[in-house]
Amino acid sequence: MRAIVLDGAVRFDPDYPEPRPREGEALIRPTLAGICDTDLQLARGYMGYRGVLGHEFVGVVESASGEGLAGKRVVGEINAACRSCRLCERGLEEHCPNRTVLGILGRDGAFADFLVLPEENLHIVPENVPDTQAVFTEPLAAAFEILRQAPPAPSDRVAVVGDGKLGMLIAQVLKTTGCDLSVIGRHAGRLDLLRNVGITSASLERDVADLSSEYDIVVDATGSARGLARAMEFVRPRGTVVLKTTVAQREGFDMNKLVIDEITLVGSRCGPFEPALDALAGGMVKVEPLVTDITPLSDGVRAMAMAEDAGALKILLSME
Amino acid sequence: MRAIVLDGAVRFDPDYPEPRPREGEALIRPTLAGICDTDLQLARGYMGYRGVLGHEFVGVVESASGEGLAGKRVVGEINAACRSCRLCERGLEEHCPNRTVLGILGRDGAFADFLVLPEENLHIVPENVPDTQAVFTEPLAAAFEILRQAPPAPSDRVAVVGDGKLGMLIAQVLKTTGCDLSVIGRHAGRLDLLRNVGITSASLERDVADLSSEYDIVVDATGSARGLARAMEFVRPRGTVVLKTTVAQREGFDMNKLVIDEITLVGSRCGPFEPALDALAGGMVKVEPLVTDITPLSDGVRAMAMAEDAGALKILLSME
Repeated sequence: MRAIVLDGAVRFDPDYPEPRPREGEALIRPTLAGICDTDLQLARGYMGYRGVLGHEFVGVVESASGEGLAGKRVVGEINAACRSCRLCERGLEEHCPNRTVLGILGRDGAFADFLVLPEENLHIVPENVPDTQAVFTEPLAAAFEILRQAPPAPSDRVAVVGDGKLGMLIAQVLKTTGCDLSVIGRHAGRLDLLRNVGITSASLERDVADLSSEYDIVVDATGSARGLARAMEFVRPRGTVVLKTTVAQREGFDMNKLVIDEITLVGSRCGPFEPALDALAGGMVKVEPLVTDITPLSDGVRAMAMAEDAGALKILLSME
Repeated sequence: MRAIVLDGAVRFDPDYPEPRPREGEALIRPTLAGICDTDLQLARGYMGYRGVLGHEFVGVVESASGEGLAGKRVVGEINAACRSCRLCERGLEEHCPNRTVLGILGRDGAFADFLVLPEENLHIVPENVPDTQAVFTEPLAAAFEILRQAPPAPSDRVAVVGDGKLGMLIAQVLKTTGCDLSVIGRHAGRLDLLRNVGITSASLERDVADLSSEYDIVVDATGSARGLARAMEFVRPRGTVVLKTTVAQREGFDMNKLVIDEITLVGSRCGPFEPALDALAGGMVKVEPLVTDITPLSDGVRAMAMAEDAGALKILLSME
C-alpha cells in the first residue's frame, strides 16, 4: 500500500506492507488524515519513532469482527491499551504503560491506505459531519480535555496563548462555556480568521503587556519554548495554567514562581471523542476555515514541508 | 533591641533599632521563634533580603490600637498586603504584589525583641496551647494549605516525599483526612520519630523503587533539587503533585512527562492559621517531638548553623 514513512527521513513508500488486524482490531481505510505538529516533531526525532506517520484521520471500516462496523465511517482514539495492567484496571487506559499509539509509538499510523486499531477505539461519525470536519475529531477532543481537567466558570477570565490550529480549536471549545475568553496570538493575519470562527476577543501578544496576572485560567497552546513562561505571566496568583505544549526545551520558566504564586499547572494531552463529535454534529465549532490545503497522499512529503510553514494551519492528506 | 540580622552575613546585633508600628499595626514581643529552611536560604542570598530574619513566632502584644489585643498571646500571618490593589480586591491579599513579608521581604522579622505586623494578621493563641506548640502555627498552616488546594479523598493513596520538619507536619495534617498515607524519607533515624507522631507507614526512598506511578497525590516536601523529579516518579498518570520546595535549580524534572501523563502540579506556600491553631488546641498534631533545641536569641548565629545540620529538625530561638 502507499504510506508516508519515517525511518530517519520522511519518505513516500508506494509499496509499504499492509497492516494485519489482530483479534479485536479493525482494518480501516482512511479517507482523510490531518498533519499535526506532533508529526513534525516526530520527523525531527521526538520519541525516536519509526513507522507510518499520522494519528488524525477519518476513514471507512474495511473489516472488523464486531457486528455492524464494516462499511461504517469512523474516527479512532489513538491509544491502544493492554487492558490488563494496574493502570488499565484503574480506568487509566489512555495512560497504560504498555500502550501503543497510532503513528506515534509502536503502531503504524494513518498516512497510508490502511491502518488498524482496536475496535473499541472507534467512533462512528454522524451522517451530517463531512470528512473534512470529522478529520478534526482527535485534536478537537484534545481541546475538550481542558473542560474535563480545568472547567472554567462563566465568571472566569480565560486566555488561550497561541493562535495556531490547536489554539483555535481550544478557543472555540472554551467559548462554549460562556467564560470571558481572550486569545493571545502572534500573527496579525489570524485575527480575522479567529473572528470567522466566532472569537472576537483576540489580541497580539505585543499589545497585552499590561494584562499580567489578570487571568484565572491560561492555556499554553503555543507549541513553543517560551509559551509556558508567557502563560505564567498572564495567570493570576492561585490561577491555573493548562499546558498543551511539549517541546525539547523550555525558556524562561521559573518553577519557584509556581510555588510562590501558588499556580496550578495541568498537563493536558488526548481527550474524549464523544463531545468532540457532538460539537461537530451540532455546528458548535467551525473547523473547515482552519484547512490550509488538501494534498494527495502521494505528495505527503511536500505536505509535511508545507505544514512547517508558520503561515499554515491544517494540512490534510487525501487518500482518494 | 537584640536581633539576628542578615546584611550580607548573619550576625547578632545587641542594639538594632526597635520597629515602630504604623497605623493599624501592633507592636509584638516574640517569646519563641522557629528557624525555617527559608531562613537558611535567605542567609545564602535567596530573595536578596536584608534585615531581621524570622517569620515563625509566638509572642505577646505590647501595644495595639485595636481593642482587646494588648497583652494577648498571639501568632501572626506573615504577608502584609496593601489592601488596595487589584489582587487584594479579588481576595488574594496573600499574593498582593505590593506586600511585605515578615522577615522575608521588606519587613523586619521575628528573631528580635520586637516586631510589628498589621493587627488583622494576628490570631490569639488558645490558652491550652503552650508557646512551644504555638510557634509551629505558621509552618503548620502551610501544611493545611494542601487540604485547601488538593484535598485527598479517604480512598486516595497519598505520599509525602521528605522526612524533614515540614514533611512531618504535612504528614500529620494529611493523616487527619483518613487517606492512605505514606511518608518516603531518606533518614533511617526519622522512622521512629514519625511513629511517635502517629505516622506508621514510612519508608526509606531506597526501598520504594517499585512503587512508581502508585500514588494519587504526592507532596514534594524535600526542599531538595531532586525532590520534584522523585515526586513525579511516584505519582500516577492524571494524579496530583503538590510542590512545597523552592530551590535555585531542579534536577531531573521533565515537563513533557507532566503533559504526557497529564499530571496536575500545584504550587503551595502559606496557609490558613485557624485550622492550624484548632489542630494544636485539639491535640490533632504533635509538634514538640520535632524540637531539636531551644537556643537563646543571643546565640542565634550558632542556632542557624545548627539548623543547617541534616540531622536537625526544628531549632527554636528563645527571647526570654
